[in-house]
Amino acid sequence: MSLLKNLVKFNSVKTSLNSAYLSTSVKETFKFDDLQLDVRKTKPDLPDDPSKLVFGGRFTDHMLTIEWDSKDGWGRPKIGPLKNLEIHPAAKCLHYAIEIFEGMKAYKGVDDKVRLFRPDLNLSRLHRSATRSALPGFDKQELFKCIQKLVALEKDWIPKSTSASLYIRPTFIGTEPTLGVSASNKALLYVLTSPAGPYFPSGFKPVTLYANPKYIRAFPGGVGNYKCGSNYGPTVYVNIEANKKGCQQVLWLFDKEEYLTEAGTMNIFLVIKNDQGEVELITPPLNGTILEGVTRQSILDLARREGKIKVSEREISMKETLSLLENGRLLEAFGSGTACVVCPIEGFLYNDKKFAIPTMSKGAPYMTEFAKNLNQIQYGLVKHEWAPIVE
Amino acid sequence: MSLLKNLVKFNSVKTSLNSAYLSTSVKETFKFDDLQLDVRKTKPDLPDDPSKLVFGGRFTDHMLTIEWDSKDGWGRPKIGPLKNLEIHPAAKCLHYAIEIFEGMKAYKGVDDKVRLFRPDLNLSRLHRSATRSALPGFDKQELFKCIQKLVALEKDWIPKSTSASLYIRPTFIGTEPTLGVSASNKALLYVLTSPAGPYFPSGFKPVTLYANPKYIRAFPGGVGNYKCGSNYGPTVYVNIEANKKGCQQVLWLFDKEEYLTEAGTMNIFLVIKNDQGEVELITPPLNGTILEGVTRQSILDLARREGKIKVSEREISMKETLSLLENGRLLEAFGSGTACVVCPIEGFLYNDKKFAIPTMSKGAPYMTEFAKNLNQIQYGLVKHEWAPIVE
Repeated sequence: MSLLKNLVKFNSVKTSLNSAYLSTSVKETFKFDDLQLDVRKTKPDLPDDPSKLVFGGRFTDHMLTIEWDSKDGWGRPKIGPLKNLEIHPAAKCLHYAIEIFEGMKAYKGVDDKVRLFRPDLNLSRLHRSATRSALPGFDKQELFKCIQKLVALEKDWIPKSTSASLYIRPTFIGTEPTLGVSASNKALLYVLTSPAGPYFPSGFKPVTLYANPKYIRAFPGGVGNYKCGSNYGPTVYVNIEANKKGCQQVLWLFDKEEYLTEAGTMNIFLVIKNDQGEVELITPPLNGTILEGVTRQSILDLARREGKIKVSEREISMKETLSLLENGRLLEAFGSGTACVVCPIEGFLYNDKKFAIPTMSKGAPYMTEFAKNLNQIQYGLVKHEWAPIVE
Repeated sequence: MSLLKNLVKFNSVKTSLNSAYLSTSVKETFKFDDLQLDVRKTKPDLPDDPSKLVFGGRFTDHMLTIEWDSKDGWGRPKIGPLKNLEIHPAAKCLHYAIEIFEGMKAYKGVDDKVRLFRPDLNLSRLHRSATRSALPGFDKQELFKCIQKLVALEKDWIPKSTSASLYIRPTFIGTEPTLGVSASNKALLYVLTSPAGPYFPSGFKPVTLYANPKYIRAFPGGVGNYKCGSNYGPTVYVNIEANKKGCQQVLWLFDKEEYLTEAGTMNIFLVIKNDQGEVELITPPLNGTILEGVTRQSILDLARREGKIKVSEREISMKETLSLLENGRLLEAFGSGTACVVCPIEGFLYNDKKFAIPTMSKGAPYMTEFAKNLNQIQYGLVKHEWAPIVE
């Protein structure tokens, strides 16, 4: 029933940016009922110790693929063996980054049931990213059912551990083989699944961030709030620079006020003692440069439902951060994302000076509580509408 | 000799961002001398009228491919039949836009010789884009020789017309099949060639631009000055909006002052009468948000060498543009790029109001002179060091 409740949120989308191309006979969504199966099960090749799994380095036996073109619309969904894609060298995804993706996970619960976590949020975001990328719309509920089927088929690949999961990667690329910078008249939506070990095999491992205002991740009027490939490629160089400086991730700042925006590929949270002496959880607002993270939203939702601390979505500058730190009022800093859930931040390098944040000094009680609550939902330790059982 | 002169500008690049991965035995550049040929010539399939060619829609028989991986370095360059690439669905180019490209042309001159145009500038920019994208370095002279060979093999595909050409598309993609957001340990550099008809089959066709400060193409601290796929995908949606408003391209503005930055995928130039009553050619400066266009640079170089008009690389705001227009001092506006050479701008839509620019009212003498000079160089009507003969 909780699954159905979630699905009510999916709206069938009949219009899209590409609908201008479409005649009435084209298929404006694919249908789960048309799914073709070509299943060749093998024994999952999993290490005994899931912590040996490198993130996104190994894939399960099968993948979901769905083709689209502007003349005929959507083709039939197919689940078949994982294999290389045949892509024309002029395909728009290889030249103009017409490519978007999502990241979500399936969890094997303590009751052996397989759950997803708020898939409605991921699939809605995928749909928004598609529209912004001039890729076609689709019915999110149909995609959900196809993904559910893929996860069910590959369930033996999900490590039985409350710190491991099956990472799910929906990907949507423009494949039209022409060099004009224009909407792609052909596209491929596909979904990969990859067994994922614990992000922190032996307890939280705090990160130090490299804060250099010279580099900008996203800008108002751009696509920083969509999950477009374009937001990621340009960050790799900066992260290498961070590594050279002894930092693990980049603290992305923005504007003259040097507002904190994201940490690496994570959203960022601060827990502070505010002017009124209250404990306040702060994360940057969704102003167009911030990815609307599912874990970010869930932490905000949990904190607001509990009502124990003040919750703010507001801009926070480097100057304010330094002042809080100096006055002993910055209690915790952490990143949030699907891969890590939460990741403690123990400091940052700014203007060649290292600043320590006492996140772990008292065991990061606020961050730890969020992680625990999310873990209990994801692995079925508590029943929750956010975690529909899919198998 | 002019070719050699050009090549002197190519510096052999022995270090790169990826050199940290490299042991001394790996190949830090590919070599033209290692080129493998698998040539299966067919009769070029060209229309009698080159204006029937759609830009980037048809490709010649062969392509150049060169593989790289961080362990062994560069493989041997290959020229073989044009064919689909086999790409793992987790390849970084499909998820994180680790992909860069170049656009250049080969021209069949009035003397039947085949010329390129300032290839040193394109290949230097490709190298810069690679470094910024954590893709490996290479010796630009070796790549030049491989491209020269490919063009020579495909020379029958170059329409014999001083308004047609063979478009050359070097492309460089990260192919490592893992989902971490990190430098790609595998990559493929390839070059496509595509016969191109006249950009303006029947005289200049001026464009109207859609100027909406809500959308930003690039920002300082990003990659707007590199030829990364990331700069293009996000523009498609905005261009569709422009088309819906009756405009052909987007006039990209930036910052509160609404500085003019680029026009569609072109650099932008204004010819004005300045406060001193002089004719002044203005284009935005290379401040990190502007692509360092080869045609842009060539127009600046030509104008400075001739010395007849004042030449400024400076920021110009929408407010200043509107004021110049109102006072009858905006004489011409045009875009520049490899595809069009120059493209007159006859107006723009700004705040839902249409403004006409009198670019064509007197035949755009300044723009036309630049176009004529570049055409004469490219098609061998005058000898020039910018246009090395390659076949």
